[in-house]
Parts: sequence; structure tokens; C-alpha cells
Amino acid sequence: MKVAILGLGVVGRGVYDIISSNFKDIEVKYILEKDESKIDDLKHLVVHSYEQIINDREVDVIIELIGGKKAAYDFISKALKHKKHVVTANKALLSEKFEELTELAKDKDVQLLYEASVAGAVILLDPLKKIREINQINKIEGILNGSTNYILSQIFLGNKSLADAIAEAYHLGFLEQGSDDDMNGLDSLRKINILSMICYKSFLKEENILRIPLSSLTEEFIKYVKEKGYIIKYISKSKIVENILSIKVEPVIIHQKSSFANIKFEENIVNVYGKYHLKQSFIGQGAGRYPTASAVVYDLLTIKNKSKYSLSFDKTYHVNNDEEKYRFLVQNKNKIYKSEFMTYSEVIKEKDLICFSRIEEELYEKL
Amino acid sequence: MKVAILGLGVVGRGVYDIISSNFKDIEVKYILEKDESKIDDLKHLVVHSYEQIINDREVDVIIELIGGKKAAYDFISKALKHKKHVVTANKALLSEKFEELTELAKDKDVQLLYEASVAGAVILLDPLKKIREINQINKIEGILNGSTNYILSQIFLGNKSLADAIAEAYHLGFLEQGSDDDMNGLDSLRKINILSMICYKSFLKEENILRIPLSSLTEEFIKYVKEKGYIIKYISKSKIVENILSIKVEPVIIHQKSSFANIKFEENIVNVYGKYHLKQSFIGQGAGRYPTASAVVYDLLTIKNKSKYSLSFDKTYHVNNDEEKYRFLVQNKNKIYKSEFMTYSEVIKEKDLICFSRIEEELYEKL
Repeated sequence: MKVAILGLGVVGRGVYDIISSNFKDIEVKYILEKDESKIDDLKHLVVHSYEQIINDREVDVIIELIGGKKAAYDFISKALKHKKHVVTANKALLSEKFEELTELAKDKDVQLLYEASVAGAVILLDPLKKIREINQINKIEGILNGSTNYILSQIFLGNKSLADAIAEAYHLGFLEQGSDDDMNGLDSLRKINILSMICYKSFLKEENILRIPLSSLTEEFIKYVKEKGYIIKYISKSKIVENILSIKVEPVIIHQKSSFANIKFEENIVNVYGKYHLKQSFIGQGAGRYPTASAVVYDLLTIKNKSKYSLSFDKTYHVNNDEEKYRFLVQNKNKIYKSEFMTYSEVIKEKDLICFSRIEEELYEKL
Repeated sequence: MKVAILGLGVVGRGVYDIISSNFKDIEVKYILEKDESKIDDLKHLVVHSYEQIINDREVDVIIELIGGKKAAYDFISKALKHKKHVVTANKALLSEKFEELTELAKDKDVQLLYEASVAGAVILLDPLKKIREINQINKIEGILNGSTNYILSQIFLGNKSLADAIAEAYHLGFLEQGSDDDMNGLDSLRKINILSMICYKSFLKEENILRIPLSSLTEEFIKYVKEKGYIIKYISKSKIVENILSIKVEPVIIHQKSSFANIKFEENIVNVYGKYHLKQSFIGQGAGRYPTASAVVYDLLTIKNKSKYSLSFDKTYHVNNDEEKYRFLVQNKNKIYKSEFMTYSEVIKEKDLICFSRIEEELYEKL
């Protein structure tokens, strides 16, 4: 099997390393990378024209790791049209163009795989594609963003201030300079969107997801929660109850003994609830060169092995994020207070709202 | 695809229900079940001769759910010889005859699948078969037996005595009458054996596994650990360090905040450590009709989908369960005391030994 890697950044290099040291029957024939400083030893594989790759009949698989939406969209759709299998970790593109790209791949009878796009190293999309046929999944919840989980861990375990934790995350490369996607929740939103589409067999739109940016939290709010002995986690959740879908990304106040509290630093967790089992949890590293690269190579093995699910997406749900009332901790310009039961729409309309967070069941009385 | 179900007990009935309500293209053609009280509505599918099933060319897959070793071995080997795919949950048989049955299936070019044999509902063997090709797994640890985990949870969370917790487990059907396999650790041993063979690409023998029966624990020992604020979990673990394999099933004294402490009642967990990622955890229900049945149906989908890994088992390891020294809590006829660093062989030779448990790192000083 011959593959081309688009983008030789952190993950791309990891993919190259894993393939070349583990698989004699997979050959990296081309690398597309403009930044010559990244190429050094691999100059003989570098090409500058994508046309050369796409027109080479020997190339079976395009591995897209350049990120961003515009060029990646162009590369992936061209690859599928040329009947090349595609492996990508690009959650931003997938979340937005999932229907179009899925149908294009189906049309051309090739595979579009994206195990690395959700929860990095954690292998869950491949099993979920089968589990969804057996199990009628009705709830997914998880911590899907390693950067914000790192920051919250430093605040609640490492006892750092919000500002210091953010500064450290930048310093360590967990937060990207120039992108707010982690702190404003877009990264988590894309992942819960992809997970939900797969598990619920339905194409969903990003704009239907309720998203409370983590960056809305204030030092005072965090201090208040900390003093009560609780912690905040940035949780993504989607749920179906009788054809009504709710789907949210938000900070939640939880107990130190809650199972999410154990998911620390850059770790991710995904809990899936289905008709035939209560809960199945997938936990592991949400990011990093080799963890993410190994999920990319996992997809390559699926293609090499010719195993394929033809996934249908024939369900539709009515989206309603106000389907239930919750209790919230709310900060406005005068004070921090606990609300009575209310919907998200109602809490968002509170007077002088600065920030708010849902309170996990049973903590309300003690908060 | 046409299948036959051998054994219509708790899980067999679950498998029948899931197939008949979810899959139009899978037909249960035969059921082999002697106990007529279990058959009621399905009499038209029941046959009394296994030969009739095995000689029917239309039958693609045999689903073995009768348990036990002798008859199951006979049924499975005949099925494979007749070029039928086999799906089974039979860990006792697999752990003992893994090499023979794996090679027979390979020989006949059919699939032998057993997702339900380890950790019930938790889908982990299928992904691990691919992960092992990418990742060089070097450590596995987990809580693999729901019955004993239920008992320990009742003792340390529910504050029951050992005797009461065991009585309750019998009452609820978590412990089988007439079998000691859960309490003496054989069930866990079989599962860590199967997991290790798959992950390490090596055929292993049950007799090389160090097994400390949970039934060796005494009320006094438990009380001592409880008073110090710690808990006991029944943990299976195997590890490779430079070609030396250690593989154990044993009670371990751990901290309440340790991640294993969160695995409660009949839940199972498997942690897998590999070259390219730190830890990947799989958590879910370890038993139960529909959880286990859904893992059986998962395997059916693999066969229906014609996806197949030809697994090699070409590694060999030297087994040594004394490769490291640990500190233990030991009970002999006079007292309970903490040991200094010693090997398992050494602790087992202690004078008047009644029971012992390894102490998790960092707890020693406070115990």
C-alpha cells in the first residue's frame, strides 16, 4: 500500500515514524510540506505539486494533516474524487463538512476515516461505528479538549490562578498562539458534533450546539467554587430523549469524587450510554505526537485490511437545548449566587450576567 | 447470514433478542438447548443434534454460549473443522486452548472471535488486535471480575462484612453456586491470560500466572485496611520488561483516590500501556445479559463485514513473577504487619502465613 502525507508537522512526523518502523508493506511515497526546515532527512519524498500525488495511480491513501479548512477541504475532496482513500485528523473541517465528505466518499466507494479527530490516541470511533448498529446509543458525554482540561487541572489540583494556568498552557504548547478554539469551546464543539453524528446516525449542524466558552469564567467564580471544595470541568454532552436532541459544551461544577474529576491534565474521556449497556468509557491521551499519530495509523490498518462499514445517516432529531431545567451558579456584576431550576435560555437572560455554570446534581444544597 | 446459537441461557437469549430486533440480514436458524423451560416461544428453531447444524451448509456462524470446557471444546473444534466461523464468550476454554483453536481457525481460514470473553460489554479486544500492530503494548492491568469487585465494593463502600457481601453476591446471582472461579481468581486469571496473549503476540500458559485467591482474605485483614482509610481491589496485571514477562492476579491495597477505586460494583476496567501512548482505559459493565450479548453480536458484525486480522503469535517471553520486590501487608496467626521489600516467593514463605496483599506505592508509610 502506498500513501502520501500532507503536512509534516508534529503529528505528520509521528505518522511517518510509526509507518517506517512498523510496516514493511506500507510505503510513504510522497510528502507535501512547504516548510523546508521540517523536511531535512526526507527531501527525497517531498513534492510541491498536489496534482502529482493525486494523478499517481499507485497512491492508495491520502493522509491529510495540514489542518485548517480551506486547503484541507480542497485536498480531501480532490482525493476522494480521484478514488483515493482519505485519513484525516481535521475535526474543524469534518464537523462542518461531514455530510458532504461522507457522501462523496460513499459515492466514489472509498473510505474517509478520522479516528484521530476525536480524543487523540483513544480508539473509539471505530468500535462506535459497530456499537451503534447493535445498541441505539442515547447519550454521550466527555471531556474532549486536553488543553482546557490541563488548565482546569492546574487551577483545581495545582492551585494556580486562571491567568497563570493559561500562561503555562501557552508556554507548554497546549494552547495554540493565535487560536481561541480551545478556550472558546469550538474544538470541543466540533468533537461532540462528530461523535454525535456517528452515534446517532444523523447529520448535525454546528450552529445547533449550545456553547458556553470556558474563557467566560472569572477568577472570583473559580475561587468561590474552590472554597466550597468542588471543581469545574469543561464537559461536552449530547443526549436523545424521544426524538429530542440536546447538545452542549459547557463548564460544569462537579464533586471531587465524581468520575470526571479523575480525568486529569491532557487526558480525555468519552462515556457512551446505549440501550443494551449502561455506560462504556474510553479514556486516554487527547493529544500529542505519537498518541495522535497512532490513531492515524490505526485508520491506515483499517484500509489495508479492507474492512469497511457503510454507515447510514438516516435519522433526524429535533434539537432543543432547553429540554430540561437545571440549577446554576451565576455571577453578575454584584454577586455570585445559586439559581433555582431554570433553562439555559433563562439563565442566559439573567440581569448583568458575567458567567455561569451548571451545578452537578446533589451538590446544590452544599454550594 | 445464518447462525446457530448453542445454549439459550442468560446471554444466549440476549443474543437472540438483539439479532432478531436489529438485523434483518442475520437469521438465527438453529438453537441447541436441552432445557425445554428456556425455549418456550422458540421451539421451531430447536434441534437436538449438533450434527444437523454442522452439516447444514447454509449455517455460516456458530455462537457457542453453553460454557464449560468439554462439550464446548468439542462443538467449537468441529465447527472450525467444518469451516464455520465461531463466536464464543467461553474464557475458560479459550485461556486453556487458545493456541490450538487459533491455529485451527487459521488453518481452515475461518474466524474465531471472543469479544464477550473479557470484560463483558466492553469492546476492547477488537481495537487491541489493531493497536498491537502499531504500538508494542508492554503493560496491561485491570479489574476483570465483576463478582469480586461487587463484593469488595460492598465491603469498602457499603460497609458490609466479607461474609455478608459474599452472601449477597450469591443471592443476586453475581456468584455462581457450585463454582469458586470468581473468588479463587481463576476467572480473572483466564481473562488476563487471553488479554496478554493478544497484546503481546505470544501464546501463554495458565500455570505461569501467579494467582492469590481473593478467598484468602480474612475479616481481620479487611478491618485493618479499612481502619487505615484504604481499600482493597482484586487486580490482574501483566507487564513486559526486556523480554521478562510477569503476570499476576491478586488483591492490592490502594488509595481511595486511586483511579481503580472509582471502578465500582460489577464494573470492569482494562488499562493498556503502549510504546506510543501512556495509557488507554476501557471501562464498562463486566457482565449481564444484554451487555455481554451485545459484545457477542459485535463479533457477528465483524464476520458479516468480512473484516479480518490474521494475528501472528511469534513472540516468546521468559516468565518471572519475582522480577521486582514489593512491600506487603501480611497476616500470620499472631498479627498483621507490614513487610519490608521482598519478592512474592519470599512473602509466600513467611511463617504461619494466613493472607497478604501488595501495598500500592506510597501508601506504605501511612499504613
